[in-house]
Amino acid sequence: MVSLLLNHDVPQWLPAMRAAAPDLALRVAPDLGNRADIDAILTWKVDAELLDALPNLQLLYAVGAGVDYLVDLVRQRPHLRIARIADDAVSGDVATLAVAGTLQWFRDLPQYARQQDQHQWEPLPVRCSAGTTIVILGLGRIGCATARAFQALGFEVCGWSRTCRSIDGIRTFAGPEGLRALLPHAQVLVCTLPLTDQTSGIIDAALLASLPRGAFVVNVGRGAHLDESALLAALDTGQVSGAFLDVFSTEPLPAGHALWRHPAVRITPHVASRTQPARVAPQVVENLRRLRAGEPLLNLVDPVAGY
Amino acid sequence: MVSLLLNHDVPQWLPAMRAAAPDLALRVAPDLGNRADIDAILTWKVDAELLDALPNLQLLYAVGAGVDYLVDLVRQRPHLRIARIADDAVSGDVATLAVAGTLQWFRDLPQYARQQDQHQWEPLPVRCSAGTTIVILGLGRIGCATARAFQALGFEVCGWSRTCRSIDGIRTFAGPEGLRALLPHAQVLVCTLPLTDQTSGIIDAALLASLPRGAFVVNVGRGAHLDESALLAALDTGQVSGAFLDVFSTEPLPAGHALWRHPAVRITPHVASRTQPARVAPQVVENLRRLRAGEPLLNLVDPVAGY
Repeated sequence: MVSLLLNHDVPQWLPAMRAAAPDLALRVAPDLGNRADIDAILTWKVDAELLDALPNLQLLYAVGAGVDYLVDLVRQRPHLRIARIADDAVSGDVATLAVAGTLQWFRDLPQYARQQDQHQWEPLPVRCSAGTTIVILGLGRIGCATARAFQALGFEVCGWSRTCRSIDGIRTFAGPEGLRALLPHAQVLVCTLPLTDQTSGIIDAALLASLPRGAFVVNVGRGAHLDESALLAALDTGQVSGAFLDVFSTEPLPAGHALWRHPAVRITPHVASRTQPARVAPQVVENLRRLRAGEPLLNLVDPVAGY
Repeated sequence: MVSLLLNHDVPQWLPAMRAAAPDLALRVAPDLGNRADIDAILTWKVDAELLDALPNLQLLYAVGAGVDYLVDLVRQRPHLRIARIADDAVSGDVATLAVAGTLQWFRDLPQYARQQDQHQWEPLPVRCSAGTTIVILGLGRIGCATARAFQALGFEVCGWSRTCRSIDGIRTFAGPEGLRALLPHAQVLVCTLPLTDQTSGIIDAALLASLPRGAFVVNVGRGAHLDESALLAALDTGQVSGAFLDVFSTEPLPAGHALWRHPAVRITPHVASRTQPARVAPQVVENLRRLRAGEPLLNLVDPVAGY
C-alpha cells in the first residue's frame, strides 16, 4: 500500500484525500512516523532535508501550477519523480486574472474611477479589441486558456512557446526567431511561461524595447521571468504604458519597492489561482494507484525541460 | 440612384462612405439639398421633424447597437424601415467591457489597489470561475459574444432571452418562467437586452430580490432596463454586493446622483462600443444597393418586436 505525506495546507487536503480514498495511508507533516513507509509527498515548496529523510520516497506531488521550486531538487535526486495537478479550474483562474488585469487597463477603468470620484461624465476613445494584438508567452494549459479567453473577446491572439505548438484558431510561433518576429506586434504581452533555465529573465530590457511603443505587460508566470528594473525604466520612458503583475522576484514584494508606488503598475499578491483539494484529490489518488501498480504516472514533469 | 443623408459623426462617416462607394450620392445634415432626393438616412438619435421633412425617405440606418430610439418613430411611420449595423467588433467591445467590469469585482482589483497604496501584501481568498454562475440577459449578437467570453474563462454561463434560442455549449432559458428559474442561481447578472416594451424596467426590486444574496449586476444594455432606486436599495441591504453600469436612465448621469458616490458601484460613461465607420461602410453600401434594386434588405429591425 502506498503511503502519502501531506506537506501543504493540511486542513484542506486531509479531508479531501480522506474523502477521495478512505483507505489511503496518510501522514501529516511534521509527524513522519516510520519514515521508511513514505512513498510520496504532496507539497508546494519543500526542504531538501525532508526529502533526504525519507529513504523510500519516489514521488513529489506538486500542488501548484509551477514546479520550478521542485525541479532542481529532483535533478540532484534522480530517483525522484514530480507529478503535478492538472486542473482546468486552475488554468481558468489564472486566465481570468490575466484578462481582468489586461482589461482594466485596456478599457480605462482606473481613469473612469477617478472621473467617478468627481461625478465627471467624460467618455474616452473606445479601444477596440479587434485589431489589438495580444501575445501569450507560454502555451501550456494556462497559456492556452488565456489565449482562448482573449480570442473570445475579439482580440488578435498570437501564442509563443519554446517548441512548436499547434492550437486550433490561434496563430502560434516558436523559438527565438518566432519571438523576435512577434514582439513588434505585441500591444499586450502576457507571460504564462513555466520558469526554466531558458525562460528565466526572458522579459528583459531588450525584449521590452522590441515591443511597440505603449505596450502593456502582464506577468502571471513567475517573478524571475521579468527584469523588474528594466520594466520600471521602460515605464518611465513610456515605451511600456503599464503593467499588471501577480508575481515578483521577491515575494512578498518588500514594502518600499518601487513597483508598489508606480502609478502605471497594478499589483496583486500572487493570487492567480488556488488549487481546490476537493476537486483534484481523485487525480492524486489515481496516480498513487498507478505508482503502487507500477503503471505509468499521469502529469509527470520532465526534469530536463523543467516543466 | 439612391441618395443617403449622413446625420451622425460626419467627420468619420463621410470619408468612410466615400471610400466604400465613390459614386454614392451623399448629403450631409443639416444641408439637405433637394429633400425629395433622399432615400435613406444614417443616424443615431433623430428628430421626427427631420424624418417628416423627407418625402421619399424609405430607410433609417442605425449606427448604434440599440435601436430603441428609432422604433417608436417608425411605428408611427410604417413606410419607413430600420436597418442596423451588424459588426462582430461592436459585439466584442461590449462583451469586453462587460467582462472587464465583472472581473475587476470578481478578482477584487479595487481592494488590491487600496492595499497597493499601503504597500500591503495580503492575499484574499481566490474566487474560482468554475462553479460561479453568470446569467446573460439577452442572446442577440452582443449577449452571445458575452456568454462565450465568460465561458472561455471557465464560468458556468446561462443565457436568457424572450424567445427560445439555442447556442452551442450555452444553457439557454426563455420567457418569464425561464427567468424565474434562473435568477436564484445568478451570482452575476449581465444585461445585454434590447430596450423594448417587454424589457423596460426588467431589473426591478422583485428581480433583484430573486438573485442569490451578494450577487453582482452589470448593465451594458440600456439605462431604462434597470430601476436605479431599487438597485441602490438592494446595495444598501447587501442583497446586491456591487454593480458595473455603462448606461443610465438619464445620460449623462447627473452630477450629484447617488449612483456616482456609491462605493460598490463602478460607472463608465456609455462607452461599451463605438461603431468604426471604415469597418462597416461596405455593409451600408450593400444594403443601399439592395434598396435601389428592390432586393430584401439585410439586418432589418422588426418594428413590432422592437429589435
